[in-house]
Amino acid sequence: MPNGPTFLTLPSRVSKPRARGLTHVLDKALTVPATHALIAQCADLIDIVKVGWGIGYVDPHFSERVAAYRAAGVEVSLGGTLLEVCAAQGKVAELRDWALSCGVSVVEVSNGLGLLDRESKAALVRQFSTDFTVAAEVGSKDQSVPVIADEWIAEMESDLEAGAQWLVTEGRESGTVGIYHGNGSVRDDLIDAIGARIPLERVIFEAPSKAQQTWFIATVGPDVNLGNIATDDVIPLETLRLGLRADTALQISAINPVQASHH
Amino acid sequence: MPNGPTFLTLPSRVSKPRARGLTHVLDKALTVPATHALIAQCADLIDIVKVGWGIGYVDPHFSERVAAYRAAGVEVSLGGTLLEVCAAQGKVAELRDWALSCGVSVVEVSNGLGLLDRESKAALVRQFSTDFTVAAEVGSKDQSVPVIADEWIAEMESDLEAGAQWLVTEGRESGTVGIYHGNGSVRDDLIDAIGARIPLERVIFEAPSKAQQTWFIATVGPDVNLGNIATDDVIPLETLRLGLRADTALQISAINPVQASHH
Amino acid sequence: MPNGPTFLTLPSRVSKPRARGLTHVLDKALTVPATHALIAQCADLIDIVKVGWGIGYVDPHFSERVAAYRAAGVEVSLGGTLLEVCAAQGKVAELRDWALSCGVSVVEVSNGLGLLDRESKAALVRQFSTDFTVAAEVGSKDQSVPVIADEWIAEMESDLEAGAQWLVTEGRESGTVGIYHGNGSVRDDLIDAIGARIPLERVIFEAPSKAQQTWFIATVGPDVNLGNIATDDVIPLETLRLGLRADTALQISAINPVQASHH
Repeated sequence: MPNGPTFLTLPSRVSKPRARGLTHVLDKALTVPATHALIAQCADLIDIVKVGWGIGYVDPHFSERVAAYRAAGVEVSLGGTLLEVCAAQGKVAELRDWALSCGVSVVEVSNGLGLLDRESKAALVRQFSTDFTVAAEVGSKDQSVPVIADEWIAEMESDLEAGAQWLVTEGRESGTVGIYHGNGSVRDDLIDAIGARIPLERVIFEAPSKAQQTWFIATVGPDVNLGNIATDDVIPLETLRLGLRADTALQISAINPVQASHH
Repeated sequence: MPNGPTFLTLPSRVSKPRARGLTHVLDKALTVPATHALIAQCADLIDIVKVGWGIGYVDPHFSERVAAYRAAGVEVSLGGTLLEVCAAQGKVAELRDWALSCGVSVVEVSNGLGLLDRESKAALVRQFSTDFTVAAEVGSKDQSVPVIADEWIAEMESDLEAGAQWLVTEGRESGTVGIYHGNGSVRDDLIDAIGARIPLERVIFEAPSKAQQTWFIATVGPDVNLGNIATDDVIPLETLRLGLRADTALQISAINPVQASHH
Repeated sequence: MPNGPTFLTLPSRVSKPRARGLTHVLDKALTVPATHALIAQCADLIDIVKVGWGIGYVDPHFSERVAAYRAAGVEVSLGGTLLEVCAAQGKVAELRDWALSCGVSVVEVSNGLGLLDRESKAALVRQFSTDFTVAAEVGSKDQSVPVIADEWIAEMESDLEAGAQWLVTEGRESGTVGIYHGNGSVRDDLIDAIGARIPLERVIFEAPSKAQQTWFIATVGPDVNLGNIATDDVIPLETLRLGLRADTALQISAINPVQASHH
């Protein structure tokens, strides 16, 4: 924020590259001009852009957009569903080569379709971590699959062991599966269980809605890693982290002045 | 998709101009730069843009935007409500002249306000089909009007007979009327009844939500005609058609490899 | 609308600067190109842009965007939460100086966090009305705070007395608090009570959803002042005011031809 105002006392935020307080954005096929506009507006606030599911495969300007993000210091991730489809079709090597040729820096290894066992998934994590940073996603995209904390944590530990840099907890764009109940509210017992066993700076919580972002910021703190943030919500999310929106103002700005420092 | 990747086996999609698998987009007053950006991104994926309801009458850059769409091979439709208001005010001839002067190629003839009887509607279809391609919409915008399959089909047959090129089934931008129940779920018995009597390549199903698009693609197939697609959803919809999003991946990519061909 | 069509009979709308029929837009951090595109599209339809809550403090291009809006004859307001946080941190003078340096013309004085008593709020209205146009917001952002019409009206009268130009009735971006029930429906008894005591041209009703906009236009009239309009909804709202969308067409265009004049 060059030349921005500095008269308020706000939580301090680390500059990029940072290990905490990551903002992981979901790009659902921005146009080229909108990509450049987003970068000009807030590249310093965005750590990773995920071009969701198989959009990268279809978007005719994918390579051009990846290059623009990377030139601005933003990591670019493929969506996990694309890798799952490639694995089901025996095209993992082709995906790797294509992703490298496009300049993609992060690969998401997920099992949202439920076609992989834990070992196959870990093998993909191991394989891709040679050439890419791996974000391993945990959780099904299917609401009917039961969510069992011990299984999630075992999978997370297996993925970390296999070389994953980040663990992404499933929430989808809708925020109604994985770490959320069908009505969008947080499975707080699951979050507690994860927090007790996994280092939180390695976890990116998918939190597409404002209420979900608010819950994590109020509960875990302004430097929680949050994912699946809409491209329009990057600056609004930053205001939530800083206590400059009503939803978090009392928790961040006024009630906890102790943990605040000069912004 | 020039120079795009081709290593996956996906449903084949016909190039424009095409008779099936149409994507009909709802434009709710894009700005001029956003119009150009959309065209540059995915004009080959868009068959028809409908500038919704009376927006064309108010948008100061309507003619300029119509010209941009048409130059890129995208048909442009007026919204049906505008014609209904014109009919109520006795200004149908004025609408026709103005639409021709703007370069509009498609006119939607609807009866969402319920002011027309079936004969008057068919007469408008007949009248406009001289100068324009006519998309005849069936269904009320009012949730309290009962939905009766036989009446829908009789109206569709009457509109086809009068010269309509396409039949658009009402869903609105909200997806909660016409072919949908109030909660957004599909009236599948109505769709079955339509499919049994009307050639589906002549029908455009308004399907604004991802769940509705998924239902039609999984039920009717990747080449179903879908309408009222948000401008941001054109590429996401294409990924649904191709089985590159979790919602349709199992139905399209993995479970039905038989119907797939090289993309 | 230079060179636009004029063949329909529509409600007359006053040109800017106008005292009634204001459209007050919520800007949630548009990019710079999107700001310019919005201005080029419909600056004549926008009376005030509110850069919501603390976004102005974080947006690195805030001053540049304020200048663009002001050059196009659009007033720019700060969000009330920013002032509330500044008041809680004893930084009101700093806010004033910074806002003046950015070219902000309107300051919203609100009490959404509930930290101010009525007198302190009126004092802020008085203080800021020296240098800015003041929009005083009434209502809590907290759903659990009871909504009592007499208290709202007393606060509105106190704010007007203190120098507020406009009174903004709380609805938030969600449209589920203040003048709305939790399900988004309008508290019509509250609106009646306000209308009986406060001049409606001084009131801006926050109405983020189409249903809420429709209710106010159908109930109060096309020239009601509406606020928290999304940047994408400016032209769609204008079509609602003019009866060119199905939701208001019967009320505005057809049923009340008496109150219509040439557009």
